[in-house]
Amino acid sequence: MMGKIVWVLLVVLLLVQAVLAIDGVSVDRLNIWPMPHSVSHGRESLFLSKDFELNTEGTKYNDGSGILKDGFSRLLDMVRVAHVVDGNFSKIDTSLLLQGLHVVVLSADGQLQYGIDESYKLSVPASGKPGYAYLEAHTVYGALHGFQTFSQLCLFNFTARVIEVPMVPWTVIDQPRFFFRGLLIDTSRHYLPLPVIKNVIDSMAYAKLNVLHWHIVDAQSFPLEIPSYPKLWDGAYSVSERYTFADAAEIVSYAQRRGINVLGEIDVPGHARSWGIGYPSLWPSKDCPEPLDVSNNFTFKVIDGILSDFSKIFKFKFVHLGGDEVNTSCWTLTPHVKKWEETFNNFGNKLSRKTVVHNWLGAGVAEKVVAAGLRCIKLVLGGEVCMWGEYIDGSDIEQTIWPRAAAAAERLWTPYDNLAKDPRQVTGRLAHFRCLLNQRGVAAAPLAGLGRVAPEEPGSCYTQ
Amino acid sequence: MMGKIVWVLLVVLLLVQAVLAIDGVSVDRLNIWPMPHSVSHGRESLFLSKDFELNTEGTKYNDGSGILKDGFSRLLDMVRVAHVVDGNFSKIDTSLLLQGLHVVVLSADGQLQYGIDESYKLSVPASGKPGYAYLEAHTVYGALHGFQTFSQLCLFNFTARVIEVPMVPWTVIDQPRFFFRGLLIDTSRHYLPLPVIKNVIDSMAYAKLNVLHWHIVDAQSFPLEIPSYPKLWDGAYSVSERYTFADAAEIVSYAQRRGINVLGEIDVPGHARSWGIGYPSLWPSKDCPEPLDVSNNFTFKVIDGILSDFSKIFKFKFVHLGGDEVNTSCWTLTPHVKKWEETFNNFGNKLSRKTVVHNWLGAGVAEKVVAAGLRCIKLVLGGEVCMWGEYIDGSDIEQTIWPRAAAAAERLWTPYDNLAKDPRQVTGRLAHFRCLLNQRGVAAAPLAGLGRVAPEEPGSCYTQ
Repeated sequence: MMGKIVWVLLVVLLLVQAVLAIDGVSVDRLNIWPMPHSVSHGRESLFLSKDFELNTEGTKYNDGSGILKDGFSRLLDMVRVAHVVDGNFSKIDTSLLLQGLHVVVLSADGQLQYGIDESYKLSVPASGKPGYAYLEAHTVYGALHGFQTFSQLCLFNFTARVIEVPMVPWTVIDQPRFFFRGLLIDTSRHYLPLPVIKNVIDSMAYAKLNVLHWHIVDAQSFPLEIPSYPKLWDGAYSVSERYTFADAAEIVSYAQRRGINVLGEIDVPGHARSWGIGYPSLWPSKDCPEPLDVSNNFTFKVIDGILSDFSKIFKFKFVHLGGDEVNTSCWTLTPHVKKWEETFNNFGNKLSRKTVVHNWLGAGVAEKVVAAGLRCIKLVLGGEVCMWGEYIDGSDIEQTIWPRAAAAAERLWTPYDNLAKDPRQVTGRLAHFRCLLNQRGVAAAPLAGLGRVAPEEPGSCYTQ
Repeated sequence: MMGKIVWVLLVVLLLVQAVLAIDGVSVDRLNIWPMPHSVSHGRESLFLSKDFELNTEGTKYNDGSGILKDGFSRLLDMVRVAHVVDGNFSKIDTSLLLQGLHVVVLSADGQLQYGIDESYKLSVPASGKPGYAYLEAHTVYGALHGFQTFSQLCLFNFTARVIEVPMVPWTVIDQPRFFFRGLLIDTSRHYLPLPVIKNVIDSMAYAKLNVLHWHIVDAQSFPLEIPSYPKLWDGAYSVSERYTFADAAEIVSYAQRRGINVLGEIDVPGHARSWGIGYPSLWPSKDCPEPLDVSNNFTFKVIDGILSDFSKIFKFKFVHLGGDEVNTSCWTLTPHVKKWEETFNNFGNKLSRKTVVHNWLGAGVAEKVVAAGLRCIKLVLGGEVCMWGEYIDGSDIEQTIWPRAAAAAERLWTPYDNLAKDPRQVTGRLAHFRCLLNQRGVAAAPLAGLGRVAPEEPGSCYTQ
């Protein structure tokens, strides 16, 4: 596992070191994270009216499930969370008041899936007769990204005591660089309570990440209920450190309503020791508990059962099967398994063309995979930040993920040519995004230091 | 400042070390924190009905402000936060279903103040014809404590998929050992956004702490708006790292609705360098910026203005004036101040009898203060945990406070004779409370280690 952690730290730290190479905070006021595809702005200001409203006139999408409505309500919470808005609106010239946000979703299809159109266009008018800001998107999920961007254009005006949109007029035309922008969480090494996972999902949306890779099970514990094989979660750490099937469905639904797919993973045939607590015959032998006993038909029945149950809640087109770190010594040492082993060695070149390879063993692999005609997460469909759970739990997951994952999120969202070449500029924006996360109650850590460290001295959030 | 931090760590660590002296987790199932004054329970179980409701028949308190109603709604959120409640209630014998909680508040007075009656009596009937659980309290704030205790009696039943109250019938008779059970936060060394402070207030309520000591201002920054002297918050770290007067009122109101008083502090005459950014004449001289220039009448006008503005939002009967670490060298070195200095030296024995001394300089002081006929926070009115802000911010305040503050909270709430004498038993309960905090989204750190550290290895929350 250390290997995995080191790799993750390497990937993420490399990105962060790249943007933190020079100290000091940028004075650039264009503090949007991740940087959109294209942005233009002016120098005037508008203010959100007291009854800033959602207008969906002309939208093809039927918001029966309330995804758009709830997203707008969260937008209002985001821009009002930091300070009490108690300004005297009657004192503000109506020609400076934005009445609301007019959202037009062009597609009626509300399905969230890999490869959907996440683009959006956002425009905020100049002062004068502002009326409504305008947001257009092909899908409701593109519109949710637009809400996130709009929330980052807003700030609290300490003089008027209302929400200001500075630098109007705005025109933002935006779409992601990659379809797959993931964050992995690991609920086997440490159980993560539902509210913790929901907070992580909320924070992912702030950075426009769109895949929660849920590494549910591993050697240490099996926290998820599998209705087909109810003894599997006997491998949980404790009775209360378990997810019911309904809990898992709730996580998928919570994420989906925020435009985030959930990639469910069962790691086979290695990393599966915990399966045998409930079903010991899955082990080659009691003394040699992993990898799974591939000579036992029951093993494949259980895997089938898990995948069949998965298909009832995980609607993402991919399921992750792990396949990593298979220590085959238990197969070799167990006579009835040894006969079978060969069929499992070097199965890489026997993989179906539909397989997508998730590369974590570092450099070189991605190239070989692509050369072999297979798709690969890294640099092809996208990428992900892996928050392995050996040394994190509900007490420190947020500051371990943030702000480092934000560096990866921008590289997965923003066109390569738009990525800032001046580290000084990115440092200021990243510090601003970290402080924005803190303002929203996300425990993003200071940029200084090696990550997940306490601030070194008293000072402003924006300089740490 | 290090002196203060060291002291805090000492006090808190001593408490925690006391309860962590022996490893291992208690098997005692009476997992209530802080331990009530008296508890008795049985061995049966009841379940919360689908429409578990609040019944206030016979209550003298008019809940016009909704404090009781909102508290009950938070109670439901607390017991339902960890898992989806999707059990089939029609399958449960109605003689096992609790219909709701009948709350009787005996006093009509809804004012929160030092020394109010916080006692409550909670009873949960045996199975049979359960009807309602019964909660009686003199004040609405005692009832809120009863809600917290009730929430800790509940757990999710993974078989029935509903909320269970095990070990019924319950009778809990409870009241605090001390009136003053405080937690200090410091918003000068690092600005804490409103949502962070609100989360801290929520978590205080879980441990029945009742005073938020808000160390608002110090040498490093002056984040609070003072309407009488609007340039004072020019001493803030940045434009956005400020609290409007309405923000401060919102914090006081948010805390008050949860039974928590806010003790506002301005630290004078030392620790006030930041005041002079907006009003340089408050400094003895530009080269010698603190303590405040006590030879300047304007200094006292400003202090009067601050206290007068404070009185508009801070309704607690105490205001904290700091008075610590007064380095008088700037007074001695500045001729026009030197003449005045004597009046400020050794003013301890000139303090009004109404003064309450907050002792942080360690052993010996409390005794002298009491001997001098003055009241003292520590061991007399109560005590507090001081979370100084030099090395914490919104990213790590929760896991620095918790679970360590819980050890202090129990000693301030639970009668001395009831405090567990077996560290093994307390370790299990404290670990359970820490995991409960995680379940509610509070980033309480593992018990193991020196505090605010990552878990050392994969494992159950209850063993770390």
